[in-house]
Amino acid sequence: MKPINVGLLGLGTVGGGTLTVLRRNQVEITRRAGREIRVTMAAVRDIEKAKKYAGDGFKITTNPFDVVDNPDIDIVVELIGGIEPAKDMVMMAIENGKHVVTANKALIAKHGNEIFAAAQAKGVMVSFEAAVAGGIPIIKALREGLTANRIEWIAGIINGTSNFILSEMREKGSSFEEVLKEAQRLGYAEADPTFDIEGIDAAHKLTIMSAIGFGVPMQFDKAYTEGISKLTREDIQYAEELGYRIKLLGITRWTPEGIELRVHPTLIPAKRLIANVEGVMNAILVKGDAVGATMYYGAGAGAEPTASSVVADLVDVTRMHTADPGNRVPHLAFQPDALSDDPILPMSEVRTAYYLRLCVLDKTGVLAEITGILAKLGISIDAMVQKEPREGETLVNIIILTHITVEKNVNEAIAKIEGLSSVSGKVTRIRLEELNKN
Amino acid sequence: MKPINVGLLGLGTVGGGTLTVLRRNQVEITRRAGREIRVTMAAVRDIEKAKKYAGDGFKITTNPFDVVDNPDIDIVVELIGGIEPAKDMVMMAIENGKHVVTANKALIAKHGNEIFAAAQAKGVMVSFEAAVAGGIPIIKALREGLTANRIEWIAGIINGTSNFILSEMREKGSSFEEVLKEAQRLGYAEADPTFDIEGIDAAHKLTIMSAIGFGVPMQFDKAYTEGISKLTREDIQYAEELGYRIKLLGITRWTPEGIELRVHPTLIPAKRLIANVEGVMNAILVKGDAVGATMYYGAGAGAEPTASSVVADLVDVTRMHTADPGNRVPHLAFQPDALSDDPILPMSEVRTAYYLRLCVLDKTGVLAEITGILAKLGISIDAMVQKEPREGETLVNIIILTHITVEKNVNEAIAKIEGLSSVSGKVTRIRLEELNKN
Repeated sequence: MKPINVGLLGLGTVGGGTLTVLRRNQVEITRRAGREIRVTMAAVRDIEKAKKYAGDGFKITTNPFDVVDNPDIDIVVELIGGIEPAKDMVMMAIENGKHVVTANKALIAKHGNEIFAAAQAKGVMVSFEAAVAGGIPIIKALREGLTANRIEWIAGIINGTSNFILSEMREKGSSFEEVLKEAQRLGYAEADPTFDIEGIDAAHKLTIMSAIGFGVPMQFDKAYTEGISKLTREDIQYAEELGYRIKLLGITRWTPEGIELRVHPTLIPAKRLIANVEGVMNAILVKGDAVGATMYYGAGAGAEPTASSVVADLVDVTRMHTADPGNRVPHLAFQPDALSDDPILPMSEVRTAYYLRLCVLDKTGVLAEITGILAKLGISIDAMVQKEPREGETLVNIIILTHITVEKNVNEAIAKIEGLSSVSGKVTRIRLEELNKN
Repeated sequence: MKPINVGLLGLGTVGGGTLTVLRRNQVEITRRAGREIRVTMAAVRDIEKAKKYAGDGFKITTNPFDVVDNPDIDIVVELIGGIEPAKDMVMMAIENGKHVVTANKALIAKHGNEIFAAAQAKGVMVSFEAAVAGGIPIIKALREGLTANRIEWIAGIINGTSNFILSEMREKGSSFEEVLKEAQRLGYAEADPTFDIEGIDAAHKLTIMSAIGFGVPMQFDKAYTEGISKLTREDIQYAEELGYRIKLLGITRWTPEGIELRVHPTLIPAKRLIANVEGVMNAILVKGDAVGATMYYGAGAGAEPTASSVVADLVDVTRMHTADPGNRVPHLAFQPDALSDDPILPMSEVRTAYYLRLCVLDKTGVLAEITGILAKLGISIDAMVQKEPREGETLVNIIILTHITVEKNVNEAIAKIEGLSSVSGKVTRIRLEELNKN
């Protein structure tokens, strides 16, 4: 069979990795796909930098239209990142009847609905395995492997930078700032790390998994996002002493009132397998009603791990591009006319457990005031620990773990507690998930 | 679109689970598959027991030919288990142009080559996700998710019974016999547990993963199989002290000399994520050259977890049954005409590290004799620990961890060491894998 021709938009880390993997494993990939998959063109910004990838039958251009308008190209791989011009190029490729493979989480999370509708109308595929958790085939697991299940919830460590920082803070007892610098030095964090450490990157990925898991449109703008930059080594240490580990989790859960969609630091029991995922690695725990909990672990970023997912999508598209669109897996796992309009639950309505740390004056009656506020709001206490004050200090740290309760009540309790004259400064609030049931 | 009609062969644990999941999640599954998947008939041994599953449009028969010869049935789900009559029924269904979904690992591992050839000739699909690791979509990950990779090795905890026994032996310090009885009482082990505890069940699953990972025919008869029944609590304890955990692993690895295909108890570093997979859970670690290590974790058995995989296969077949066979994923991940004839490596040629425990007389010169034998055979020692003899005993346990070496040399060393007058009884030999590189 004649080869499938691929055009790359972007030849940076992932683009270079894709080219490298396709070339190195050409024989292996052809044995699987049944035909050769070859990159015939790449559009790049800097033609000098791209020259190291020169090869037979491979053209380099600075004009992305040379790729998306090229009648000889069957599949366009979008690896530009960001929204513009990536979105225009993807829409143009679809308009030209080309299949698209993309690693662009922001693009899919924000504009996936529009992109999939256009692809559906044109009868082409848009594949995005590489957009979530790098090399882990989690999109395939969710879209195809777990189709028997009503998905109950998904909880994932889906930002390697944040997980590296939290792992180092815990192991070395370092501060956030110290570890961030180290991560930047090692290339695990960008010069401007906001997207990673403030949970935005994770929220992009979570939005995509939520849509596929529950059969709802992408609703990135409704995701709740809280990062790790305010976490202290003390809280990481206290959590550890209580048998928990703090991870930046993306959590999406179906409830009768709506779908939770939230990224935030989370205490999880240290004995859970996912609590032991350290460094830049990613892992996603999926709870289905039939299968129970399954977990998927691997490299969430990097040239070749991400290329692994890009190329897997290329093989899928190569297999299916001559098939009837009705035979294909729907973009969002559910048939486009069978999506649900379940709402996304506002964060104030989410029900979870909480770790609260309060700095209080070490005197009689303080605890009674605090527990009184919690009791009035129906917040029941699972555990309470008072840390001994340091020599000469009059303030003590009190840690409270609550049972599951609704977030708005906790917000109200925190406001009231912060108003007490015996309480110093802000209350630290970190959510807590047992990850073992609904 | 009109519904897809499914006929079940067998309505035991997995058959009942399949029916339950299809009925409970009918709306959800139809939203994904684009059409209803309904079980219209089941062939059972005991019609009385099956009556609890009675439902609209669902017939029960004791004659499996009523299913495989039924022109109204599109997909036959084989859940009889064992080789006969399962094999005849599967071949008959294929002959009748029906697609087949099976959870039968023994059948696929032993007769997969013949079954897939027949399916290929008839243009039908035989799907077997449920045959390996219950609800974990590992076949999909290997066949489709990791197609970019040259798979280097696969190592899995793929027998829940054995993993439960090893977990309990370690946690409670109990003997194999005690825990086996407990497992039987809990329903985790059969009355005759041979298949599970002697590694045969794991070897079936490993054979299937090896064929898919490396693109070779099923070669179950060449798998090396060693179970857990001879493991002692002492060895589990000693391993723990050295920072290792003993797991029954199925390991298959590509080497230039041939493919390793082996099931045996294995020391693995306790800090590895897979070492912390406890109880009846399964996990498979896959090393690809592009993606690195990925891991897949979940329930390896049970009615609904296994049904989760059966139904996922039903959805796949439903999507693809009208597609051109050339668009489908090949049974063994590689195109049937592109399988490799890489040989399976005999166990004596396998290279791995070893844990050796020797019971020796506590006297001068013994260690020199032993280390001399090892040195002569080119076996280098990574660590050696001498356990203090118990009060009044003259025999001491010596633990030796070797570097990677070829098995036949270790066999020769063990024979020579056992011949020494200062060594009492047999040498305990357990293989050791670091699971972090080639």
